Order: sequence, then structure tokens, then C-alpha cells
Amino acid sequence: MHSYQQLFNFTQEVFLHMGCPPEDARLATEVLLDADLRGVDSHGVARLSGYVRLWEAGRINAKPDIQVIHETPSTATIDGDAGLGLVVAPRAMEIAMRKAEEVGSGWVSVSNSNHFGIAGYHAMKALAKDMIGMAMTNASPLVAPTFSTERMLGTNPIAVAVPTNKQPAFVADLATSAAANGKLEILQRKGEQAPSGWIQNAKGEETNDPHELKAGGALLPLGSDRAHGSHKGYALSSVVDIFSAVLSGANYGPWVPPFVSFLPVAENLPGKGIGHFLGAMRIDAFRPADDFKAHMDNWIDTFRKARVKDGEEAVIIPGDPEREISAIRLAQGIPLLTPVVKDLEDLSKKFSIKFDI
Amino acid sequence: MHSYQQLFNFTQEVFLHMGCPPEDARLATEVLLDADLRGVDSHGVARLSGYVRLWEAGRINAKPDIQVIHETPSTATIDGDAGLGLVVAPRAMEIAMRKAEEVGSGWVSVSNSNHFGIAGYHAMKALAKDMIGMAMTNASPLVAPTFSTERMLGTNPIAVAVPTNKQPAFVADLATSAAANGKLEILQRKGEQAPSGWIQNAKGEETNDPHELKAGGALLPLGSDRAHGSHKGYALSSVVDIFSAVLSGANYGPWVPPFVSFLPVAENLPGKGIGHFLGAMRIDAFRPADDFKAHMDNWIDTFRKARVKDGEEAVIIPGDPEREISAIRLAQGIPLLTPVVKDLEDLSKKFSIKFDI
Repeated sequence: MHSYQQLFNFTQEVFLHMGCPPEDARLATEVLLDADLRGVDSHGVARLSGYVRLWEAGRINAKPDIQVIHETPSTATIDGDAGLGLVVAPRAMEIAMRKAEEVGSGWVSVSNSNHFGIAGYHAMKALAKDMIGMAMTNASPLVAPTFSTERMLGTNPIAVAVPTNKQPAFVADLATSAAANGKLEILQRKGEQAPSGWIQNAKGEETNDPHELKAGGALLPLGSDRAHGSHKGYALSSVVDIFSAVLSGANYGPWVPPFVSFLPVAENLPGKGIGHFLGAMRIDAFRPADDFKAHMDNWIDTFRKARVKDGEEAVIIPGDPEREISAIRLAQGIPLLTPVVKDLEDLSKKFSIKFDI
Repeated sequence: MHSYQQLFNFTQEVFLHMGCPPEDARLATEVLLDADLRGVDSHGVARLSGYVRLWEAGRINAKPDIQVIHETPSTATIDGDAGLGLVVAPRAMEIAMRKAEEVGSGWVSVSNSNHFGIAGYHAMKALAKDMIGMAMTNASPLVAPTFSTERMLGTNPIAVAVPTNKQPAFVADLATSAAANGKLEILQRKGEQAPSGWIQNAKGEETNDPHELKAGGALLPLGSDRAHGSHKGYALSSVVDIFSAVLSGANYGPWVPPFVSFLPVAENLPGKGIGHFLGAMRIDAFRPADDFKAHMDNWIDTFRKARVKDGEEAVIIPGDPEREISAIRLAQGIPLLTPVVKDLEDLSKKFSIKFDI
């Protein structure tokens, strides 16, 4: 187990050594580690060395000049100047919330960014302001549309955070693929088989071997196959791609640049970097906030008490598992896999940062 | 086969006999029949007698006084005064589009409505104005959340329509359940089995028997089971319910009133009627419309040309199948099942409307 505070200090030092301004280094660290706290281990410090390599390859700008390039009272388009998505997305969310304060809702499409951590972090920023928060991002292509053998879409997540009063907030945060790529990485590492309906091989046939992903295979959209609605997962993922990238001028579909620095970026790109879409709606732009929150409490209470099938404890409210694991990890520490610790040790040597995590 | 125009004239007469003002009768007919044109047979004239019975039961107001009860520059909340959803939703969409013209985007949550036909119709209204359109609605409970044996959510659809230039528009329109209820109704009628992953029985066990739905069973969320992401379908359906009803003051979750008049409406309801959520974003609120539409054309062209697995023709772009069937049915007529024709004949007698369809 590794303490959140020590991981925080170490990660912040790494971002400072990359040349991030102090406030950006602090923010990027908070966003990145929120994934570790909330149990989305694939998106936290496990990716820190990846960000460093992208910075070394000149594909991340540690001192970005983030610009609003187009706006209306309720919308904005932002060029992230190749900054860390961990910094660009929070700035975009601030703009969305400011617009929501002014005109009821705010919607910001972002180009020229890169991986922004977990979508839920950004959506949840709206909660303290009694706003509904939304966050989406596209990502490098891993998912094949229904009927296709090509990777055309990322796991393109959607997050929606909804304020409450006595109940904890409702926080949906979901990849639009049947399984998140992080789950596949874990199976690959452990040498285990994947459930049917998560992946296909290079010919588009269902397979249980997670290594097929590296041999021309693809992740499947939410719904898994046509009979079970994979065309719906594909459509939702497409909407995320369009809102995040076609609206903003980022790369879309098969052109979204890879997170890993050893893969080349395609030529003749249709846009800049990867794209995000952030939104905020003031709840009192629709009805008095206290009314809304009382009904959300009732909604959650009602669903939590719904009858369950034999062997199950209770219906889970979106956001419950992540909130519970977050409390445990803040108190007891964050478990890291050996290769991740090794990665951090290498970063410690590279930047001569004391490694006491 | 039945001609669109004759079905239109007949349906319009029925709405006029219910007491709808002429413009409302025309609009309701256009919305309802768009489902028949686009191949969503369960949501078209097959439901006409259902609307009439709800009107007879005093649960539909043919002359609603639709009111904006709360608004900001980019949002509004509407009370549909128990009007036809087929009339209330288009009015709400008009308000959303007007706000988008004024401040870039418009978002309208609607209470005190009822079934609004197909979601795609409302989202597509934005296309001619170079806006992205969105439409959602909650519906009477048929879907069990992951782990539950209770019907807590409707099939709660999400539609998103995106403008293009040379390509036909991108139109996603999807129920957030694994299968739409209309598909189950067809299987029930034909006495056929359902694929695994569509429904569960009263104990929450997977079943292929579509009649289990009437014996305490439930539809499953998109994703079908926990291993394949049913918690994601459940979360998306919940978001639709919250945006449509908790924001607006409509009924939510298990309290959404049934479409059929013979089922009683629950007592001590938390809201009024069913709820919708309509949205519009001007694309030139983000980037010049011509740029956006050129990239959408490229997006669609790229996806349409993606490699397919053996035996498949091409990747399908959301909206393609419905557009193709619509063209065919406009030219060749709309097929109706015998019980639907019988329903229309009964309406013809009830209202003494000439029946020449």
C-alpha cells in the first residue's frame, strides 16, 4: 500500500520537473490520482511514465497557452495548445461552469489536448456549485463499429454527475465499449481469458483471448454484438467522438493520436490532438435547487431499495463503488502493481526525485 | 400496404375528433406517422387507439395550455398540461432551438406530458437550422436495474441528430435497454423466443420466453448482464430519467404512468405526467458550420468505408436504415399488421370517419 499523500508529492514533483507551472502540476496530480483513489487503476499513476514519454517526444507542452478560439454566451471552443489533458480539461470545465452561472448552461468542446484522466473527475467538479456536470473524451482507436474489423473509435467515456442533498451524488462514468481497456490490460498481465463479448480477433470473430487485441483484434462496443445492441454502443461512442472532436477541430475516429509515444502519429491529420466535451447545467436553471435535490434523494433511495435477485445485496447507485473505494484508499493507501512501482522508481532516477512511496 | 397520405388524413381526423386544434392535429399526425415511415412500427399508428383511450380516460388534454414555468437564457422548464406528447415535445424543441439561436444552445426539460412518438423525430428538427438536436424521454417502467427483479425504468431512449453537407445526417436513436419493447411485442405476437440477454423472469433469471415479461419479468438494460456492462445501460437510462423528470418535475422511476389506460396510475405521485428532455446546439456556436459539416462528411465517409467482416456489406452509419426504409415506405406504402388495421377500423366507427386506408 502506498499513501495518497506520498504518491501526490512524488507525482507533483514529476510534473514540476517536466516544467509545468506549480498550479498546473498540483492540478494535474489531483486529477491523475483521483483515478487511483476511485479504483480506476489503469488511468492513474500507472500512466505517469506515459505522460513523461509523450512530453519527451515533444507531444505534450508543459506550459500551454490555452485559448478560447470561439464562443457564445453558452458555448466555447478551446485549443489546449498540446497541454496535459489533466490541466486543459479542468480549465474547460471552469469555463463551462462560468457560462452556466451566467446563462443557465455551458458547453465546451476542446481540441489539441491529450488524455484527461478519468471523466468522472471533471463531471464531479460541477457538484459543489449545484450543477449537473458532464464530461466526455475521445481516445485512440481500439473499438470496432458493429460489423467492422477495423478499430475506428476509442473507449470514449461519458460521465454525468448529479447533485443531491442527503444522499451521496449520482455519478455515472462509463466507457462506451463493453469493457474498458484497463480490464483487458489486467487480463493480459495475468494471462487470463476474457468473457465472451468483450473482444474480437482480426477477422471480427468473437474471442476470449485478450492477446488478440495486439494481433489486429478490437474491443467491442457496449452491447457486444448486433443482437444485443452493439449498434447502440457504437452510436453512443460516435456521439462522444463528434461532440469532442468534430465540434472542436480535434482528431476523430481512426486519426486520434495514440497515448503511447512509441506509436507514430498518423500523417495528414484532420485535426489537432484529441478532443473533449465538458458541460454544466445549473439545476436552478430548471427548478429550485432544494426541490431538485430532495427528489434526487428520493430517486436514489427508491432505487437503492428496489428488490434484488437471490444472492445480490442491493441495487448499486452509479458512483457508489468508486466513492466507497476512494474512502478506503484515502485511509489505508493505494495498492500498486509491481511494474507500476518499477515505473515510478525509474522516474525517480530520471528526475532525481526522492522515492519514498 | 397503406399509403402515407391516406394514413395521414385518417389519423389527423382522429386527433381532430379528440378536439385537438387543427395545427396540433396536423403536428401530432406528422410526429406519430414518422415512426411508421422510419420503420419503428410499435410507435406509430399502432398506438393511435391507445392515445384515444387515454383521452377517453381523461388522461390526455386535447387543448393543453403549454406553459414555460421557469427559464434562463439557455434553459427552460415546461409544463405540458397533460397534452399529447406528440404536440408538447415539438413545442419544447422549438423553444430549445430559439434559445440556441440566441445564446448558442438551448435545453428544455418537460413535465406533465405523455408518449412523444419516436425520439429521432424531435432531434432531427434541429438539422435544418444547422444545429445538433437531442431528445430523450422517460417511459413507464419495464427495465430492471442490474441485480434487481423490479421494473424501475422505461426503455428511455436517447436521440442525437448531427448536420452534414453532402452525406445524409447522422441520426442516433436508441433505447437504453438491450432490446426495444416493440421487438418483444412482435415476438409475443408471433410466439417466438427472444435471444438471451433481452429479458429476465420474475426471479431475475435469464429467459428466452417473451411472455415472462407479463409474468413479473423485466427487460434488461443495454449490456444485458453485469459482465457485459448492463450497469452502463442502467446508468444511461437513469440519466435520461433524471434529465427528463427530476429536472422538470415529472414522474420518475417506478412512478412513470403507464401508456395503457386500463392500468391505474399510482397514487402519491412525486410529479406530473411523464418527462422529456430536448436540446439544441448551434454548430456555429463552436466552429464555422461549413467546416463542421465538411468534417462530418469525412467522418461518415471514413466509417462507411471501414473494413467489414466476411459476410457483411458495410458499416452502417446511425440513421441509414431508418432513412432508407422511410424512402421506400413513402413511395410504396406502409405495411400494417391485421390487429392494427382492426384498431383503425374501430376508430373509424367510433368517430364516423371514412375508412379508406
